[in-house]
Amino acid sequence: MSRRELLQMIGVSAGGAAMYAAMTSLGLAGPSPYKGPVKLQGAPKGTSVLVLGAGVAGMAAAMELRDAGYTVKVLEYNQRPGGRNWSLYGGDTYTELGGATQRCEFDEGLYVNPGPWRIPHHHTAVLGYCRRLGVAVEPFIQVNYNAFMHSPAHFGGRPQRFRAIRADYHGHVAELLAKSLQQRALDAQVTREDQEKLLESLRQWGALDQRYAYRTGEASNARRGYLKDPSGGLSARPRFSDPLGLGEILDSNTWAGLLPGETYEWQTTMFQPVGGMGMIGKAFGRELGALIQYGAKVTAIQQDARGVSVSYEDTASPGSTQTARADWCLCTIPLSILSQLPINVGPKMEAAIAAVPYSASVKIGLQFKRRFWEEDEQIYGGITYTGLPITHISYPSCDYYSRGKGVLLGAFTYGSLNSAEFTSMAPAERVAKAVEYGSQIHPQYKQEFENGISVAWHRSPFTQGCAGIWTEEAREKHYDDLCQIDGRIALAGEHASFLGGWQEGSITSALDAIERIHQRVVAGAKS
Amino acid sequence: MSRRELLQMIGVSAGGAAMYAAMTSLGLAGPSPYKGPVKLQGAPKGTSVLVLGAGVAGMAAAMELRDAGYTVKVLEYNQRPGGRNWSLYGGDTYTELGGATQRCEFDEGLYVNPGPWRIPHHHTAVLGYCRRLGVAVEPFIQVNYNAFMHSPAHFGGRPQRFRAIRADYHGHVAELLAKSLQQRALDAQVTREDQEKLLESLRQWGALDQRYAYRTGEASNARRGYLKDPSGGLSARPRFSDPLGLGEILDSNTWAGLLPGETYEWQTTMFQPVGGMGMIGKAFGRELGALIQYGAKVTAIQQDARGVSVSYEDTASPGSTQTARADWCLCTIPLSILSQLPINVGPKMEAAIAAVPYSASVKIGLQFKRRFWEEDEQIYGGITYTGLPITHISYPSCDYYSRGKGVLLGAFTYGSLNSAEFTSMAPAERVAKAVEYGSQIHPQYKQEFENGISVAWHRSPFTQGCAGIWTEEAREKHYDDLCQIDGRIALAGEHASFLGGWQEGSITSALDAIERIHQRVVAGAKS
Repeated sequence: MSRRELLQMIGVSAGGAAMYAAMTSLGLAGPSPYKGPVKLQGAPKGTSVLVLGAGVAGMAAAMELRDAGYTVKVLEYNQRPGGRNWSLYGGDTYTELGGATQRCEFDEGLYVNPGPWRIPHHHTAVLGYCRRLGVAVEPFIQVNYNAFMHSPAHFGGRPQRFRAIRADYHGHVAELLAKSLQQRALDAQVTREDQEKLLESLRQWGALDQRYAYRTGEASNARRGYLKDPSGGLSARPRFSDPLGLGEILDSNTWAGLLPGETYEWQTTMFQPVGGMGMIGKAFGRELGALIQYGAKVTAIQQDARGVSVSYEDTASPGSTQTARADWCLCTIPLSILSQLPINVGPKMEAAIAAVPYSASVKIGLQFKRRFWEEDEQIYGGITYTGLPITHISYPSCDYYSRGKGVLLGAFTYGSLNSAEFTSMAPAERVAKAVEYGSQIHPQYKQEFENGISVAWHRSPFTQGCAGIWTEEAREKHYDDLCQIDGRIALAGEHASFLGGWQEGSITSALDAIERIHQRVVAGAKS
Repeated sequence: MSRRELLQMIGVSAGGAAMYAAMTSLGLAGPSPYKGPVKLQGAPKGTSVLVLGAGVAGMAAAMELRDAGYTVKVLEYNQRPGGRNWSLYGGDTYTELGGATQRCEFDEGLYVNPGPWRIPHHHTAVLGYCRRLGVAVEPFIQVNYNAFMHSPAHFGGRPQRFRAIRADYHGHVAELLAKSLQQRALDAQVTREDQEKLLESLRQWGALDQRYAYRTGEASNARRGYLKDPSGGLSARPRFSDPLGLGEILDSNTWAGLLPGETYEWQTTMFQPVGGMGMIGKAFGRELGALIQYGAKVTAIQQDARGVSVSYEDTASPGSTQTARADWCLCTIPLSILSQLPINVGPKMEAAIAAVPYSASVKIGLQFKRRFWEEDEQIYGGITYTGLPITHISYPSCDYYSRGKGVLLGAFTYGSLNSAEFTSMAPAERVAKAVEYGSQIHPQYKQEFENGISVAWHRSPFTQGCAGIWTEEAREKHYDDLCQIDGRIALAGEHASFLGGWQEGSITSALDAIERIHQRVVAGAKS
């Protein structure tokens, strides 16, 4: 009997809590609420479900409902599956609100992900679908100690390596705490025995010397890096680099670049689909085939006691209204769009739909003639953080050491005035600005740049924004109302989750919603 | 003109220092002493070089010397190229000192690297040869926040996630330093203005709450992870986990597991060759072809005013001495072996050869029926650190999410009594012990284990140890003497470097040595 079978047996015979306890005692319990594909047990009784939106939420739901025997149809505004799950490749075109059309000019094999671009290892629902759908994943390098932390107004404008900022911040913190301990300032908080252990630990963790000082030498350089690396032979001796002062690290805000990689959502190991995030959407689309109707712009959602009617326009024939009807409707349309549509739900869900503004975000992909970040600067994947309006430069986590061209994520803004500023520009101007800013960090930009493409999410026709912004107050007041089934309508998407902006939130919200719809169907309580 | 051409022009016209200054001002200078393939300019005048050892040092040197026009021959003890650069695959056999022979029983595609297993991104010589030789590389996951930190005597023996130990250590350090600042204990060290900035920074970096406390809640859980993760839909709310106390983190020594990933040599991004580290040795071997004579056990090295004669035994015909002769000899034989051979070098090199003991190290590869560390515990690559004698468990940085079997590095000891203990066991006992110890961390071990193989480096016939141990005193006294050319003999290998145990040290030492030999050849100063 396999361990899994054993656990299933415990689960069946003694219930989920006993199984969880058994898993915990075996060290097996993971914290993810997603424990595998949903099981919609019991007959659907010929029930139909209309799914609005062929993003990952809608498509995961459609796949499960189909497999459980439901009659499923998906209406999708775009001519492609995926929604915000999307990669732009050479030859693709994209028309934003206002009518500007860009054509992606990237070379074969290169891409940029305008939407999601990385998958935490604990997003087991997304990764589970990747496995089921045959989407290969590879490591996404979130933290690269050799990438840059940059503040245009500090360190003479020179980008600093992540490793230097990190080592120096840790070193100064350790030195100051060691001083406090030696001055007996923490006798009330820490036992004398623990103080001894903490001092020794700080010396090692902070790369301090024998006197608990953080200074130029082997200890600090074995963290922050050398002026000249140790090597072999007669000329092998290293030359030491000098630590940066704590004051300038604090002033420059470069220390903030240490935080993302420490955050649960961005902790290594992270993944990306091989070939672009959009491979997930494409795989779902292939799986669902003709169940998805593309180019269907929903214009109204009307429910009654027996079902839901959805009016939509075929985007190829503007003005021509069509109608689809089903027993139930799972609506994954972003609230930014849904709040503009007529939908007859109760006042609670209506208020919830109106309560969530959408964040601004801009991404810009830039193609360069050569991978100078690797060849000249030994940066393989990872992210440079800068105080410039582009805020991020991200290097491709694939094709390392290849001799060809490469595409950088040349800007990624999320919220903030930077997003508004970039959104207000014409597409070509965004790209030109990203090149201009980026060249302050990588002087090679101006010579090596070839072409670029940008997506400003507030100008996206299918989302009019990037992701829902839940304040704590709004969540307290409206979240449950948004997620409760209203008559024959349930909502899903990242906006109906505690994982705003993450595909895992979209998918788990959709699975949660269809499980509850299914319970009602099985119970025969159709309204 | 490309930037590279511009820099080359500056280099040619104004010299290396000017080029370096130009690169620095452009932000391009890397700290690595290896700037690309060596250029042995000037005719070798029909000179021959005998290289002893077909490890990466000897083979890199042989390749460069051959390309420069030298007559090159390489003598190698083993029947394969690579030396310590080596992967064991199913069907391979290995006989250690004492005569025990193991046959690797791994399934197709699985391997363990008994020697080096990871390549820092700044080891540009190793990576440069990978590129030249067509060896594909992929990320090696050194730091995995979801791997375990384990002390058998603490936390009830339960392994803790790296993310929890890291977040809690940072959190406690930040809280204590914030307390010291608030108590004005550091007014002499930090300006009031910087204290304000530092406090705010510590709050964010340490995931403290508004009162600068590290405690159960969203802030700490967004670092250390949740008891139940946030997700989507009505059941989406997270449940919070409780931080561990500083005392037990210090007592358990689990904090020490935070250090490797912070160290320059193990900072992300790291790489491994696709298919095993041994792919590098194999590629060098293919490149050099018949220049390498395998099964040649060197028994004596004798130089005179005009050249070097090396006696060796064909290991297929024990007792039969053969002789090879060349103008120069580059000897990459480990000092552990070389110190046992007759070699007529001066007293300084002789003393240096005798001055370097070799570290003990043991690696054990274990094949399991399924990748339970991924399936049950969401561990994708990375390393678990434990206080048990196995010290490391490393998870494969490849084939993520594959459904098949997998091989773990089930023990990796370096130095310490653990190495001696494992070395003293018979191979099968080592494997059994690794399974027994490992099952304290992964209870799945006992059910899923299939087979294993071990290499105890002090029983390796071709090295009798893992790598040279240089004390600061020994290095001061003997290092330069080891690296200086003695008559017509030069030494190379990781032992002749400041990068002990690293392939980068081996290769750069070899290139440094042949550049100096070449200078003498070109200058006509043949002795």
